[in-house]
Amino acid sequence: VAARLREIVGPEHVVDDADVIDSFARDWTGRFHGRASLVVRPKDTGEVAAVLRVLHDAGVPVVPQGGNTGLVGGGVPMEGEVVLTLRRLDQLGELEPLTAQVTAGAGVTLAQLSAHARAAGRDFAIDHGGRDAATVGGMIATNSGGIHAVRYGTTRAQVVGVEAVLADGSVVGSLAGLVKDTAGYDLASLLVGSEGTLAVITRARLRLVPRPAFHATALLALRDGEAALHAFATLRAQVPSLHAAEAVFGDGLELAAERLGVEVPVGGGGGERGVHVLVEAASHIDPLDELAAALDEIDADGVAFAQDARQRERLWALREGISEAIAAHGIPHKLDVAVPVPVLPAFAGAVRALVARERPGARTVLFGHLGDGNLHVNVLGLDPADDDLDGAVLWCATDHGGTISAEHGIGRAKRRWLSLVRSEAEIAAMRQIKRALDPAAILNPGAVLPE
Amino acid sequence: VAARLREIVGPEHVVDDADVIDSFARDWTGRFHGRASLVVRPKDTGEVAAVLRVLHDAGVPVVPQGGNTGLVGGGVPMEGEVVLTLRRLDQLGELEPLTAQVTAGAGVTLAQLSAHARAAGRDFAIDHGGRDAATVGGMIATNSGGIHAVRYGTTRAQVVGVEAVLADGSVVGSLAGLVKDTAGYDLASLLVGSEGTLAVITRARLRLVPRPAFHATALLALRDGEAALHAFATLRAQVPSLHAAEAVFGDGLELAAERLGVEVPVGGGGGERGVHVLVEAASHIDPLDELAAALDEIDADGVAFAQDARQRERLWALREGISEAIAAHGIPHKLDVAVPVPVLPAFAGAVRALVARERPGARTVLFGHLGDGNLHVNVLGLDPADDDLDGAVLWCATDHGGTISAEHGIGRAKRRWLSLVRSEAEIAAMRQIKRALDPAAILNPGAVLPE
Repeated sequence: VAARLREIVGPEHVVDDADVIDSFARDWTGRFHGRASLVVRPKDTGEVAAVLRVLHDAGVPVVPQGGNTGLVGGGVPMEGEVVLTLRRLDQLGELEPLTAQVTAGAGVTLAQLSAHARAAGRDFAIDHGGRDAATVGGMIATNSGGIHAVRYGTTRAQVVGVEAVLADGSVVGSLAGLVKDTAGYDLASLLVGSEGTLAVITRARLRLVPRPAFHATALLALRDGEAALHAFATLRAQVPSLHAAEAVFGDGLELAAERLGVEVPVGGGGGERGVHVLVEAASHIDPLDELAAALDEIDADGVAFAQDARQRERLWALREGISEAIAAHGIPHKLDVAVPVPVLPAFAGAVRALVARERPGARTVLFGHLGDGNLHVNVLGLDPADDDLDGAVLWCATDHGGTISAEHGIGRAKRRWLSLVRSEAEIAAMRQIKRALDPAAILNPGAVLPE
Repeated sequence: VAARLREIVGPEHVVDDADVIDSFARDWTGRFHGRASLVVRPKDTGEVAAVLRVLHDAGVPVVPQGGNTGLVGGGVPMEGEVVLTLRRLDQLGELEPLTAQVTAGAGVTLAQLSAHARAAGRDFAIDHGGRDAATVGGMIATNSGGIHAVRYGTTRAQVVGVEAVLADGSVVGSLAGLVKDTAGYDLASLLVGSEGTLAVITRARLRLVPRPAFHATALLALRDGEAALHAFATLRAQVPSLHAAEAVFGDGLELAAERLGVEVPVGGGGGERGVHVLVEAASHIDPLDELAAALDEIDADGVAFAQDARQRERLWALREGISEAIAAHGIPHKLDVAVPVPVLPAFAGAVRALVARERPGARTVLFGHLGDGNLHVNVLGLDPADDDLDGAVLWCATDHGGTISAEHGIGRAKRRWLSLVRSEAEIAAMRQIKRALDPAAILNPGAVLPE
C-alpha cells in the first residue's frame, strides 16, 4: 500500500519517520495520543480520490486530519491508521463579487480565509481562538461554531457547497455557488458535522458576510447568572447588530488576566457567583449609541466600554486568554456542551456543585457563548483518565435539556455517551447512513458512533 | 388498514369521499393529477407515528402533503397512495425571547408564522407568494427559498431543529433550540429538502430574524441583462441592508400590470431585451439614503422609488402578480432553475432563444431572484405533456453551470432529469440513504429519485 501511495502523491509526501508521524498522532492538549502507520499528504482532490481508492481496495482504515485543533480526539489515529492530512489543499479562490462567495481548499486556515475575505471587503462569519491552525475542512467536518454564532449561525450556515471524496474514491458535491439548489438530498449538509466518517471534504464554496465598518465592545460585570441572562435579553431585544455575547462564569477572567499580567478592567463580576459578559455590536453604521442605550438599561456592577481599537483588542485578549491560562495549570478535562439559553446559569451552577461534590480537590472554570447556550466546562486537577466525572457533567447537560457536544463534535472522547442525547432510533439511523456511504468502514473508525 | 387508521385519528379524519380525495390528488396548476386511496388527517406527532407504523407494517405507500402549493408534483399521489395531510399540526409556540426562536407545527402556514413573528417584533426570514397556503412542513421538505434568500439564505438556514417520524414510526429530532449541537450526524439537515421521501416532518424549531423598522424599495428599468447584473453588483457592494433583488426579464411585468389593470410605474425596461429589477433594502436604521446613493451610480433607463408603504405594496403586487397573470393565459410549463449569478442574463437569453427555435408558437416569461441566480422559466402555449421542451430547458440550465431545481424540488416532474445535475456516485449515495431510512420504500414513492 505504501508503495502505491508514493506513486500517487510522490515519495516525499508519504511520511514514515516515527517522530513526524507521532506529531500527527497526538492532540495539542496532550490528552489524546495514539499511533499512526503512515502520514499521507495529497495536494489536490484527484490525489485524495486516488489515495482513498487504494486504501478502500486494501481495506486500510484512514483518519482525515486538518489543523489538529480538535479537543475530542476526532482527528487522532489510535491504532495504526493512515493519517490523511489535508493541509496541502490550501488554494483560495478569488472573491466572486456578485455572490460574495469564495472557494477554499480544505487545508486553508481560518486565519487565511478571514484575511482573504477582509482584503476583499467582506468577512467570514465564523471566528474563534483556534484561527491560526483550524482549517476549512476541519471546521466543516465539525460544524465549527465560535463567537459569532449568535448572529450568523455555525459553519453549516456558511457552506454553500462542498466537494468531497467518498470512501470508494468517488468525488461528489458542487462548488457552483448556487444558494438555491434542491436537486435531491443535500449531501453537503449531511457531511457538515460528520467528522470525517462519511467522506473527506476537499474544497468548499463559502458565503462571506458584509464586513462591519464599526464595532462597539464592552465588558460587563454582573452579580450572577440570572443577571447575565437579563442583560442578554435586553441586548437581544435592543441591539439588532449584536455580534457576540460571551460569558465567563466565576473567576475565569481573573485567571486569564493573571496569566497575561493585566488587570480585569472592571470592578465586580468574578468571584464565586459573578459573571463577566463581553458584548460586541458591529454594523456598517456605528452601533455605539445602540449598544450604549441598551447598557443603560442593564443593572451591571461595572461596565468597561472599549474607547478605541486597542482597548477592544485587550478585552478580546482577556476572553481568548482563558484557554491558555487553564492549560498553564495542567491538562484540563475540557467538556464542550450546550443547553437552552434560559437554563444556562442554572446549568453553570449545577455543574460547579457537581464537581465540588464529586471531586472536592478539582477546580472548575466555566466560560463560553452566552448567545447560543454553549458552555465550555474545564476541570483542572483531575486524572486525565478520570472519565466518570466527564460522564456526570455530560449527563448534567442533557438533564438540563442540552447536548453533550456544542461545537467540538463527538470524536473518540464522547462516543460512549452519544446515547445520552440521541435516541436508539436516531443512532440506528446514523449507523445505517454510515453503512450506506462507507460500507467497508475505513473512514475515521472509532469516531462519532458508539461501539 | 382504513379501520386501524380510523381508530388512530378518529373516523372523521380518514376521508374516503371521492370528491374530497380528488382535491388532494391534484396540484393548483392542474398539471399534476393522480389518484389517492384515502386521506388521513392526524392531529399531532403521536398520531403521525401511529399512522406510519400501520402503513409500514402493511406496506402501504404514503404521500405526505402540506399546503399543496408545490409545482413539481412532489406532494401529489399518483397511483392510489394514502395522502397524509399535516395541516392539522398547526400549533405555534410562544416566541422564546432569549433565542428569538419559535416552535411551529408542520401545518402552520407561512402567513400564520410570519404574523406570529411580527406580533413578537421579529420576522421569519423566508417569504414568497404562496404564503397563505404553503406550510412549515412543506417549506422544510422542499427547502423553500423565496425573495429574501439573498440576505438570509433558504429555509435550511432558518431551521434550528426538526421533529420527524421515520417510515417505521420512530420519532427523531430535537426541538431544544440548540444553535450549536454536534452530537452525531445532523438528521435535520438531511431531511431539509428531502421532499417527504426520508421522513415526515411534524414540528420545527425555527430562528426568527430582527424585524426591520424601515424599508426602501425601488423599481428599476434596465436596458438588458448585463445592465441588470451591473446594477446588482453595485447594490451588493454598497447596500449592506439589501433585502431583496428580483428580476423580471422582457415583458413579464407588463403582463402582470395588464392583469391588475395598472401601469408599470417606470419607463424603459420591458420589451424584448429589457429587465425590470425590484430592489429592497431594510434595516432597523432607515436605509433610504444608502439605497439612493447606490441607485445614483446605476445607469438605469428609469427608477420608481416607493414614497410610502402603499407605493411599496403596489410594486410588490406587480412582481407577485406575474404568476396569476401567466396562469390566466392557460396551463404553463413552469421550470424553476438556478444558474450562477454571473451567467443569469446569458442563460435568460439562451432559454428564450431555445424556446423560440424549438416551439415557435410558444410564449416565454422569465422572472425570478436576481440575488441568487434563481430563474422561473414559464412557457405558455405548449401541450401540458410536452416534456421534451422541459428537458431542453433543464439541460440548458446545467449547461450554464446551474441546477434543474432551485426552490421547488424534484418531485415527480423532474426526477428523470436528476442525472443532468447529479453524478452517478451522488445518485447512488442518495439511493443508499433512501434505503437506509425507508427500507420498505413507503414514503412518497416516485418522488426525487429516478426509476
